[in-house]
Amino acid sequence: MEITRSNFKDTLPKVYKAIEEADFLAIDGEFSGISDGPSVSTLTNGFDTPEERYTKLKKHSMEFLLFQFGLCTFNYDNTEAKYLMKSFNFYIFPKPFNRNSPDKKFVCQSSSIDFLANQGFDFNKVFRNGIPYLNQEEERVLRDQYEDRRSQSNGASTMSYISPNSSKTPVSIPDEQKGFIDKVVERVEDFLKNEQKSMNVEPCTGYQRKLIYQTLNWKYPRGIHVETVESEKKERYIVISKVDEEERKRMEQQKQAKEREELDDAVGFSRIIQAISSSGKLVVGHNMLLDVMHTIHQFFCQLPDELNEFKEVTNCVFPRVLDTKLMASTNPFKEIIYNTSLAELEKRLKEAPFKPPKVDSAEGFQSYNTASEQLHEAGYDAYITGLCFISMANYLGSFLSPPKDYVSCRSKIVRPFFNKLFLMRIMDIPYLNLEGPDLQPKRDNVLHVTFPKEWKTSDLYQLFSAFGNIQVSWIDDTSAFVSLSQPEQVQIAVNTSKYAESYRIQTYAEYIEKKNDESQT
Amino acid sequence: MEITRSNFKDTLPKVYKAIEEADFLAIDGEFSGISDGPSVSTLTNGFDTPEERYTKLKKHSMEFLLFQFGLCTFNYDNTEAKYLMKSFNFYIFPKPFNRNSPDKKFVCQSSSIDFLANQGFDFNKVFRNGIPYLNQEEERVLRDQYEDRRSQSNGASTMSYISPNSSKTPVSIPDEQKGFIDKVVERVEDFLKNEQKSMNVEPCTGYQRKLIYQTLNWKYPRGIHVETVESEKKERYIVISKVDEEERKRMEQQKQAKEREELDDAVGFSRIIQAISSSGKLVVGHNMLLDVMHTIHQFFCQLPDELNEFKEVTNCVFPRVLDTKLMASTNPFKEIIYNTSLAELEKRLKEAPFKPPKVDSAEGFQSYNTASEQLHEAGYDAYITGLCFISMANYLGSFLSPPKDYVSCRSKIVRPFFNKLFLMRIMDIPYLNLEGPDLQPKRDNVLHVTFPKEWKTSDLYQLFSAFGNIQVSWIDDTSAFVSLSQPEQVQIAVNTSKYAESYRIQTYAEYIEKKNDESQT
Ligand SMILES: Nc1nc2c(ncn2[C@@H]2O[C@H](COP(=O)(O)OP(=O)(O)O)[C@@H](O)[C@H]2O)c(=O)[nH]1
Ligand SMILES: Nc1nc2c(ncn2[C@@H]2O[C@H](COP(=O)(O)OP(=O)(O)O)[C@@H](O)[C@H]2O)c(=O)[nH]1
Repeated sequence: MEITRSNFKDTLPKVYKAIEEADFLAIDGEFSGISDGPSVSTLTNGFDTPEERYTKLKKHSMEFLLFQFGLCTFNYDNTEAKYLMKSFNFYIFPKPFNRNSPDKKFVCQSSSIDFLANQGFDFNKVFRNGIPYLNQEEERVLRDQYEDRRSQSNGASTMSYISPNSSKTPVSIPDEQKGFIDKVVERVEDFLKNEQKSMNVEPCTGYQRKLIYQTLNWKYPRGIHVETVESEKKERYIVISKVDEEERKRMEQQKQAKEREELDDAVGFSRIIQAISSSGKLVVGHNMLLDVMHTIHQFFCQLPDELNEFKEVTNCVFPRVLDTKLMASTNPFKEIIYNTSLAELEKRLKEAPFKPPKVDSAEGFQSYNTASEQLHEAGYDAYITGLCFISMANYLGSFLSPPKDYVSCRSKIVRPFFNKLFLMRIMDIPYLNLEGPDLQPKRDNVLHVTFPKEWKTSDLYQLFSAFGNIQVSWIDDTSAFVSLSQPEQVQIAVNTSKYAESYRIQTYAEYIEKKNDESQT
Repeated sequence: MEITRSNFKDTLPKVYKAIEEADFLAIDGEFSGISDGPSVSTLTNGFDTPEERYTKLKKHSMEFLLFQFGLCTFNYDNTEAKYLMKSFNFYIFPKPFNRNSPDKKFVCQSSSIDFLANQGFDFNKVFRNGIPYLNQEEERVLRDQYEDRRSQSNGASTMSYISPNSSKTPVSIPDEQKGFIDKVVERVEDFLKNEQKSMNVEPCTGYQRKLIYQTLNWKYPRGIHVETVESEKKERYIVISKVDEEERKRMEQQKQAKEREELDDAVGFSRIIQAISSSGKLVVGHNMLLDVMHTIHQFFCQLPDELNEFKEVTNCVFPRVLDTKLMASTNPFKEIIYNTSLAELEKRLKEAPFKPPKVDSAEGFQSYNTASEQLHEAGYDAYITGLCFISMANYLGSFLSPPKDYVSCRSKIVRPFFNKLFLMRIMDIPYLNLEGPDLQPKRDNVLHVTFPKEWKTSDLYQLFSAFGNIQVSWIDDTSAFVSLSQPEQVQIAVNTSKYAESYRIQTYAEYIEKKNDESQT
């Protein structure tokens, strides 16, 4: 089901219900870009520490926009022994909801945009009809402003434009505005004498509107209601209407109700994430670190600087997550799954020893055909991710005695895969552990090498040819990590390089130490 | 006429011809945003110096994308006494043209995107089908790379992947790759014995491909042609084919021709700007400073830091420009034109004493209906701008003796409006003078005031109430310029503020001096 700004409010109850009744949820996001800094491969160096990886992603990926969010809910029907799924594809765009709301900027990366364009991605739907959102801080600020206005206007009149100390004294009007204001006052005098209910003042500047508010408020503390209205052409003009006290209050209340509704509309898509969060349901994703980071960043709060704090925030927002890429790369799956990219994984899990899961789309929801791929629509990717999770979870049932065909997502046997996010291309730390400290590989077979930028991988192989099998992880074009097969060789390599001029070798430990020193000063 | 990547190459001759035969050109750009920093109003403070304004626009506006470019050519037909116009609406997007081309990033500003969305702007056309471009530096780098490859491949074989010193010696292949490479060599041996013309190697990593190139080049210096091909799924794999020397050369030439064509395609829209530039024709725009800056920035070169250098570059790229907003704000028009925004100006110029210009669309070109506005399509805005110019130029003819109904854009009487770009909202410097130093108003009636951020405009009016008529230009929320009606009052104001605690007043000259001091240290 496709959800844009046009049908968001109407479908909200449907989405809430789907989340409520689900056994687990699958999610996926599409972004306007991945990396604004170094190449994607440098962004994901093979010997990053989890802290480094987090810091790089935060720095180089968060100014892109998450503009499509796929949510697929899975609900197990015991009597039919099958899952019922509901899939939602949300288009998201930070449309400024009024003049005072943040005018957000986001970066687009041409390669990502081009990639999505080739998949038939509908950018018009995003930009013309995306659902807005606010993070919690923005929501709080707006709610406070709203409360301020509300408590003020419980007083004598609409005071919102009047500074506290100027309402009792005549307004000081600069000479060049006097003519304008006098004319307005004259028109209001006429208006008060005639039969009309309301009158419009011609469009004018914000400053002139302020002067009008102040003047009229001082001259006519009751009996009229003054309001700024925006025309279709986005011109702002003042409307003055005659009211008795009761009517004024009613209009005030109407205005407040409207403002409240506008505010809820502005919170928009964040309400979905809040519902997912407070449901406490298991949230499944594929290679989901960036999805989690973007989701928190856009809809909750600025990402913290420290990895540990990020883990805490994530535990609050998503108390239980499961990454199917991590699951597929872990025993017992690792042995029998060679390619863990989403499309390949999905195909693999249709074959023995796995069993294709029994999943039907719930009534009124579109069904996807996994034979004709629709990859990179977020809703479809979320669906596929859910299928992969079900197949792998059920496969775990074959290890139980007696073996079981169906394993619930609440089963103990699935628990070990919770709250571990796959770390792309890190050789010796498979996942980010959200529940505690991360694995700390010794890396005592790793060297850090600096060299002239003309060097190629082959030069590195040549340099270390005496040490047999090596692995190279490029950092940038003048440095790389090189891992040797034997830790004992490390010191020999460092020693033989002492007098080299064109390149420099140090141990991984030395490199980390220097790096930490630098970051402390 | 709408021009996207699909019809760009085919319509290029048409565009060149239109430019060639035109009397003058009108242009307009649409951007993904305006200001990434302070609010638009702080970006355009009323007392900016031209240098400050340029620096602010360069810093806060250039990372947005110019993604629609309107070009309208006007050609005067003497016998019919009317203009023939051709209008082109180009969609522009920096699609990366191969793996090595720059992966450009650009910023979008939600308010601008939302504004265009409301006008029915077609983002899909931009992102799916926009015309690519390169600036001159990027073009140079790619042409150099292309030349390098060409001169290399005139040698014995396709050397592009081989470092100079490793082609003569056997390749050192790391242990874990030996099995893979051995298998490839074995398959090539079989292939050389059988009847097939070519064989594919299974998709593999870039490093493996490099090893294959090196190994095959060393083992089979002639007789085969090795090439990397990209599949539809974007997988890169190697194709090996049998060739005699002649055939190899032919293939090489074919490849070069294809690369050359790809390169021309990549230069894309920049070719239009180059054609406009070298035509030397008068280029008309409305409020065109940002258009000029973006055009140079995207299609020519990085903008220089200094305003003077920017003027030089602009003179090279656009030897003659005319800004209709500046023209309309200058005498004799200033007296009879009150609103110089494009839409209003166009309406005004249909009424006396102006005469609506006689303009027909050339054969095969769509005509626009100015009654049903289509504002904010770049091609239409360029068209309207051209109309405005014609009306105003012709009006100047009424001052000639004998009066003339038609004034050519080459007439001396138009010359004073050349090469002056309108400066938005600067009170006392109407334009940026591209032909020399800018006007230097004394601003000896201007004060720079700092105050607590709770202050409102009314507080400033209060503070200066003794001095009569003042004008306020906000800088940020704790400072503003205040201009007094009499320069003599300035020193009095500064003196009376000596002991004030909450605010500080200095003269404009003092403020500039301090600012210059700061920028020098
Ligand atoms: N000097 C040098 N630098 C390289 C080479 N290969 C990669 N690099 C650098 O390492 C970074 C990561 O490279 P890689 O992991 O191969 O992925 P890529 O960026 O997608 O080509 C690149 O952006 C380069 O800065 C090479 O052969 N020589
Ligand atoms: N303290 C204070 N700052 C103001 C006021 N009005 C404007 N500013 C500041 O000056 C900047 C420019 O204001 P203005 O020219 O009115 O345009 P705006 O940004 O579109 O409202 C704003 O972004 C504020 O930082 C005011 O009444 N009080």
